[in-house]
Amino acid sequence: MHAYRTHNCAALTKANVGETVRLSGWIHRKRDHGGVLFVDLRDHYGLTQIVADEDSPALPILDGLRVESVVTIDGEVKARAEGTSNSNLPTGEIEVFARSVTIQSKANELPLPVAGEQEYPEEIRLKYRFIDLRRERVHSNIMLRNQVITSLRGRMTAQGFTEFQTPILGASSPEGARDYLVPSRLHPGSFYALPQAPQMFKQLLMVAGFDRYFQIAPCFRDEDLRSDRSPEFYQLDLEMSFVTQEDVFQALEPVLAGVFEEFADGKTVTPAGEFPRIPYKEAILKYGSDKPDLRNPLIITDVTSHFEKSGFGLFEKIVGGGGVVRVVPAPKTNEKSRKFFDDMNNWARGEGFAGLGYVTRKAGEFGGPIAKNHGPELMAKLYDELGLGDDDGLFFAAGKEKEAAKLAGAARTRCAEELSLIEEGCFKFCWIVDFPMFEYDEENKKIDFSHNPFSMPQGEMEALETQDPLDILAWQYDIVCNGYELSSGAIRNHKPEIMYKAFEVAGYDNATVDKEFGGMIEAFKLGAPPHGGSAPGIDRIVMLLADEPNIREVIAFPLNQKAQDLMMGAPSAVSNQQLRDVHIRVVEPTKPASS
Amino acid sequence: MHAYRTHNCAALTKANVGETVRLSGWIHRKRDHGGVLFVDLRDHYGLTQIVADEDSPALPILDGLRVESVVTIDGEVKARAEGTSNSNLPTGEIEVFARSVTIQSKANELPLPVAGEQEYPEEIRLKYRFIDLRRERVHSNIMLRNQVITSLRGRMTAQGFTEFQTPILGASSPEGARDYLVPSRLHPGSFYALPQAPQMFKQLLMVAGFDRYFQIAPCFRDEDLRSDRSPEFYQLDLEMSFVTQEDVFQALEPVLAGVFEEFADGKTVTPAGEFPRIPYKEAILKYGSDKPDLRNPLIITDVTSHFEKSGFGLFEKIVGGGGVVRVVPAPKTNEKSRKFFDDMNNWARGEGFAGLGYVTRKAGEFGGPIAKNHGPELMAKLYDELGLGDDDGLFFAAGKEKEAAKLAGAARTRCAEELSLIEEGCFKFCWIVDFPMFEYDEENKKIDFSHNPFSMPQGEMEALETQDPLDILAWQYDIVCNGYELSSGAIRNHKPEIMYKAFEVAGYDNATVDKEFGGMIEAFKLGAPPHGGSAPGIDRIVMLLADEPNIREVIAFPLNQKAQDLMMGAPSAVSNQQLRDVHIRVVEPTKPASS
Repeated sequence: MHAYRTHNCAALTKANVGETVRLSGWIHRKRDHGGVLFVDLRDHYGLTQIVADEDSPALPILDGLRVESVVTIDGEVKARAEGTSNSNLPTGEIEVFARSVTIQSKANELPLPVAGEQEYPEEIRLKYRFIDLRRERVHSNIMLRNQVITSLRGRMTAQGFTEFQTPILGASSPEGARDYLVPSRLHPGSFYALPQAPQMFKQLLMVAGFDRYFQIAPCFRDEDLRSDRSPEFYQLDLEMSFVTQEDVFQALEPVLAGVFEEFADGKTVTPAGEFPRIPYKEAILKYGSDKPDLRNPLIITDVTSHFEKSGFGLFEKIVGGGGVVRVVPAPKTNEKSRKFFDDMNNWARGEGFAGLGYVTRKAGEFGGPIAKNHGPELMAKLYDELGLGDDDGLFFAAGKEKEAAKLAGAARTRCAEELSLIEEGCFKFCWIVDFPMFEYDEENKKIDFSHNPFSMPQGEMEALETQDPLDILAWQYDIVCNGYELSSGAIRNHKPEIMYKAFEVAGYDNATVDKEFGGMIEAFKLGAPPHGGSAPGIDRIVMLLADEPNIREVIAFPLNQKAQDLMMGAPSAVSNQQLRDVHIRVVEPTKPASS
Repeated sequence: MHAYRTHNCAALTKANVGETVRLSGWIHRKRDHGGVLFVDLRDHYGLTQIVADEDSPALPILDGLRVESVVTIDGEVKARAEGTSNSNLPTGEIEVFARSVTIQSKANELPLPVAGEQEYPEEIRLKYRFIDLRRERVHSNIMLRNQVITSLRGRMTAQGFTEFQTPILGASSPEGARDYLVPSRLHPGSFYALPQAPQMFKQLLMVAGFDRYFQIAPCFRDEDLRSDRSPEFYQLDLEMSFVTQEDVFQALEPVLAGVFEEFADGKTVTPAGEFPRIPYKEAILKYGSDKPDLRNPLIITDVTSHFEKSGFGLFEKIVGGGGVVRVVPAPKTNEKSRKFFDDMNNWARGEGFAGLGYVTRKAGEFGGPIAKNHGPELMAKLYDELGLGDDDGLFFAAGKEKEAAKLAGAARTRCAEELSLIEEGCFKFCWIVDFPMFEYDEENKKIDFSHNPFSMPQGEMEALETQDPLDILAWQYDIVCNGYELSSGAIRNHKPEIMYKAFEVAGYDNATVDKEFGGMIEAFKLGAPPHGGSAPGIDRIVMLLADEPNIREVIAFPLNQKAQDLMMGAPSAVSNQQLRDVHIRVVEPTKPASS
């Protein structure tokens, strides 16, 4: 017989009744029924009920152990008595009568309990993460994460991608977020940096002639932390050669839809091949955001033309000044009190907006100052155009286009939440496409890149030479699920002459480009294929699937919000010798540190 | 038609003759046959021959491009003329007549060629790694690496293991090699360290109740570099709960044998379930090494007892002084000249040994001073016991046991190499088991741990309390392939009382143990399962399979031997702001740096 177990704690069923078995695990719960002790024995796989009665030599031993002690039980499988079986457990029809017990590890008193659902402060949970990870929810979150990643790998391989490893000891780069630095021992005064993403390396792999790269890539950003941000995070990094944007979509949709379907636990998922593609401009108009939550049925409409001449002077003035008026419907709000609408307005002011106008409607009757001033006939015409009904309210966001779009987007979300209109039980994906290549930088009064300077402009050189820069779109795309951006991606600009030209449009001369990005451009001068890719965030995917709002719930050993590992004591002081070895010394800040 | 390709460059066969196709790739080679241009077009998948004749508008364009430029070719598939097909290529029966060509990327003059086999200095190769990686051998090495890792993952999953990610921003630890440090921004004067291995985390995952962990784990050691060492390397890190040493072997043998069989390219592999288990002591005796190359048929024998009384005074004196005499057979060396034996002796002296004695034998006739002094009868007796024949020579390593074993081991290797006895075309695995738990530290005149203090001693507490410490063995095991250690592993000591006792034997009190290893011991006091694992080196596995002696040949973007990335320029100077952010400054060494 095996030293520790013949079965795991989820394996035994009625078919094993009568067998002599050996099980090992943690004492999850103990219940003393007057001379008979019931123990739930737990391992990674499940629970098995152990019974020790007065005749069993196991009784006094088990009785003397704290929960979470580890034991090996030898015993006999018996069917549970009529009416005592537990259909929630795979082993719920049997119990094991303990003949003997071997103590593998005695547990001291626990800093936090394992059985039960109670909340515990994160500080205690992370300091004793090895206990916290035994708790059902965290344990299953981490297994979900692991399975999601294994599934992503399998699906990427099935799509013809190969996984590579790119360096973690890399070069510091001036762009992007703050790097984590690693002082060099062999090169005094020089530093490695941990990668914020393997962007350069994956593009160089394409230049090196590998065709379809992916990596479950660890990435590092030394930024201030939020609930959805960890200093160390993983992305499904991918890149493909000889592809158009459409090819990237065709490759990625089955992977994402597939993994979501696999782990969605009954929720519906936008099928592969059917992810809507929403141009950036349309997204800003209809959803007030480039991360639209398509579970929200409300659609924003531009109604500016209705208010060029209106009795409502405020809007007329805004429109006359080049501003816009956008509306968010509030369907079936005839029963809502005035307070509902006023609360929305107050919320908008609280968010820093000038205010959210509204029109109420009950059985066809309009209410509120906008309707009053605009007049019932014009209101009815507007409602007809919008396809709204007799009991639908309407919120108004007016102002400069950018501001109005932002307010309308926020109002759309809040209104749908308040009215419980967000569809539940589904994951709705979309692509946001056609991002503008350039934008006007109001502050510096110049044209600059709006997102990524390294994306290929649509129309390539011809567009750069002939179009208004603000009209040029980029082959750049985000993937969005339920309002969360999972990744941005692009077809890259692999042509040095177009790169120089694009930078020229944004006001940078060739010398500057060569200085900042010379390495990449030199590589592109030695034979580069057209290529593109994306990099969906894995932690975010798992957060969505696990329905957890905090990234630390889906990482086995996360740093806390102050970027500390309370369990292992990192970061920590190191020896002077260690500092001397890498040619640095500590400079204590004169002001209190930002922590 | 797709913008870039209807087929990849390995896809077209006679079945496609007559089709209009589009191919994209790099111009691998060009051959001008007087008005007809032949181009080998290369992509990740293979080569296709493109033909541009005088009528083709593609001719002047292709003619004007340098090799390694990237082009898209539209053309027609034709069967190659009788006698011109190339059976080495999957596409060798066809060629594509170019109708038109689109230039995707013009290549400048290359710093090193892609086609051809010539060697290039590593410095150039690494600076232009994106070109170097296009070369057939490196390209296929990296793909082999990727496929090996994917296969390892699949095999581990099939064995019931789950892949986890453990932190890369970790805590510095006093033991082991030198850490790479990462200064903290939020905690002035504190540092993270990159993991030398995820040892603590994997054990804590077992304490957390996960059952079978693995990870393709990046590991970091700031050590001086050798050809088989990289600052950043990967191991197949694994750990299992409720297991004996035998369970680890049963889990790992199919994974290793499986992946070697898959990629051995015709070489034989020790089958899973048949890896010999060689006790450490036996390995040192028979192979003079705990990393025996079992392809070498030579076996060392201890012949000390033969020289207690011998006419050969030197050996008699060594044996009388507590030393040993070990022999390595040199079979069928009757034709070898005296020089062969003298060269071996000189080699041994060159390696720092006192010398390697020898006996020659030709047609039964012994030669050399040892045989002369020992006498032919005693020599014949010795030969009979060793099962040696009339034409076999014999090398002698005599001295203190440790030295003699080492010399015998080195002589065994050299002798087999000189005589071409190493079996080719095979991967021979073995486990080295039963490592001693303790050893006598001559320098400090005390008993100390011989390898890993955290391994479970065989016999556990009872052994520690009752046996001579130098007789106690550990549940510790190495896996060796063809003379290379792939990993060490152990059943861990998960019981605090046995841990304290083992450290006591090695002269450390409980307070010291708590101070150095308190975190782990505290975790073990809250319910720890018996557990064990291993961590085969992945770079080493790929080096064996690719038959490459240099680790940098199996890493896509390796640091050079001075730990520099010549392509990306890492490590590099960083801005003063970056240093201020993390509260350090550089201290230039007063002496020249070790680089």
